[in-house]
Amino acid sequence: MPSSQVIVLYDFPSTFPGKACSPNVWKTRLCLNYKGLPHRTIWVEYPDIAKVCKEIGAEPTGTYPDGSPYYSVPTIYDPSTKSVVSESARIARYLDKTYPDTPVLIPPETDAFHAAFNEVFESLALPMLPLMLPSTSEVLHPESRAYFRKSREAWFGKKLEEISPVGQAREEQWKKLAEGYTKVAMWLQMDRRDKLFFEGDNICYADITIASFLGFLRRSSGADSAEWAAVKEWDGGRDSWSGLTSTR
Amino acid sequence: MPSSQVIVLYDFPSTFPGKACSPNVWKTRLCLNYKGLPHRTIWVEYPDIAKVCKEIGAEPTGTYPDGSPYYSVPTIYDPSTKSVVSESARIARYLDKTYPDTPVLIPPETDAFHAAFNEVFESLALPMLPLMLPSTSEVLHPESRAYFRKSREAWFGKKLEEISPVGQAREEQWKKLAEGYTKVAMWLQMDRRDKLFFEGDNICYADITIASFLGFLRRSSGADSAEWAAVKEWDGGRDSWSGLTSTR
Repeated sequence: MPSSQVIVLYDFPSTFPGKACSPNVWKTRLCLNYKGLPHRTIWVEYPDIAKVCKEIGAEPTGTYPDGSPYYSVPTIYDPSTKSVVSESARIARYLDKTYPDTPVLIPPETDAFHAAFNEVFESLALPMLPLMLPSTSEVLHPESRAYFRKSREAWFGKKLEEISPVGQAREEQWKKLAEGYTKVAMWLQMDRRDKLFFEGDNICYADITIASFLGFLRRSSGADSAEWAAVKEWDGGRDSWSGLTSTR
Repeated sequence: MPSSQVIVLYDFPSTFPGKACSPNVWKTRLCLNYKGLPHRTIWVEYPDIAKVCKEIGAEPTGTYPDGSPYYSVPTIYDPSTKSVVSESARIARYLDKTYPDTPVLIPPETDAFHAAFNEVFESLALPMLPLMLPSTSEVLHPESRAYFRKSREAWFGKKLEEISPVGQAREEQWKKLAEGYTKVAMWLQMDRRDKLFFEGDNICYADITIASFLGFLRRSSGADSAEWAAVKEWDGGRDSWSGLTSTR
């Protein structure tokens, strides 16, 4: 397939191998891979994301406190339908609808449940943010780094170096994050048997969400770090999701 | 069926018509009704719940801050299997497993999702508590009322009369609760069509949960109150759940 006909995925680059960093964009990349849909990435530095999104006609995915529109990646352009879609869950639903012969990400009977899952998982994964922000900044290119620092410092109301807890406070924060994942692991044991994935044996969007954030943890902590070694032991070392994180 | 052979549901009595008050016990009652399983209620005043639960061999459903076990209703005794089960979601799973020929409450493929839903819905419904606590106290029998006051005042750290916001603060609290329900209504519009229920056309445990709390709101606010009239207008007046609340 000529590259002008494959789905375009917009992402920001980092110094990680393979360039990709954002867990939210990883969700879409894993969705495309799981469906076997050919795609290529256009790398956009942080300060240019809003401009590029507007140029291609993407919808804003939120609003700033002052009411102005907020644009973000993942955003995709699909030349086969000439559609631009932003925000990973919306993209997953678009892909299910547009490519009904590929593996389903969000089965209709779990659609409302997926939305509830998104809501709760976001809050469970939140403790990850202060732990990982400084290292995320370090892997960005210089032109994105200044923008990232400014926006995150405004968000947290403190210097980037002060956002990430250290010592005892860092351990507490890791514990909080681990407790969130323990909750998720318990959800998978509600059924008559210990499930590998949310729906049983097949991967769905919820699993991809979890895997994307675990992959982010692994890359940001360092695959050889003591912190990632600890994550791999969480909840009896269940590795169904961390296995997913090595999927490209 | 002789009454000694039907499922026993433990609940605490109130002065509401039909005696039942607790939204958590209503979940189980609606589950039993939806499955068409005959049952009778044994009414236990608040101060006796722990004693009765221990007598019949129920598991505690939590622990107090001091580490001592916490017992609660709903608890059921099923004479056909000689099983005692506590906590509404656990009871729903027990009923699905024990009575496979009755309508399913938690389809296995939504089992982990149901657990995620429970987690998030609990926090969305939480603003209901301070709004409704004083009126809940009023409908209890005197022997339960003192116990209820003592435990709730310890929980909130203030007098029962001070827990429920008034004036502007009360309006804000109602708004917060309405926003939670709006989120749920939006989850049901994620799919290709506006769903009546979580899985589409069939009722599942998530719908029963929502209906049980709406029913509690209706009874506690008063079916003819201005507050309940406002609830009925939420989210374009979707009444799929409030319709459920009239089911016995």
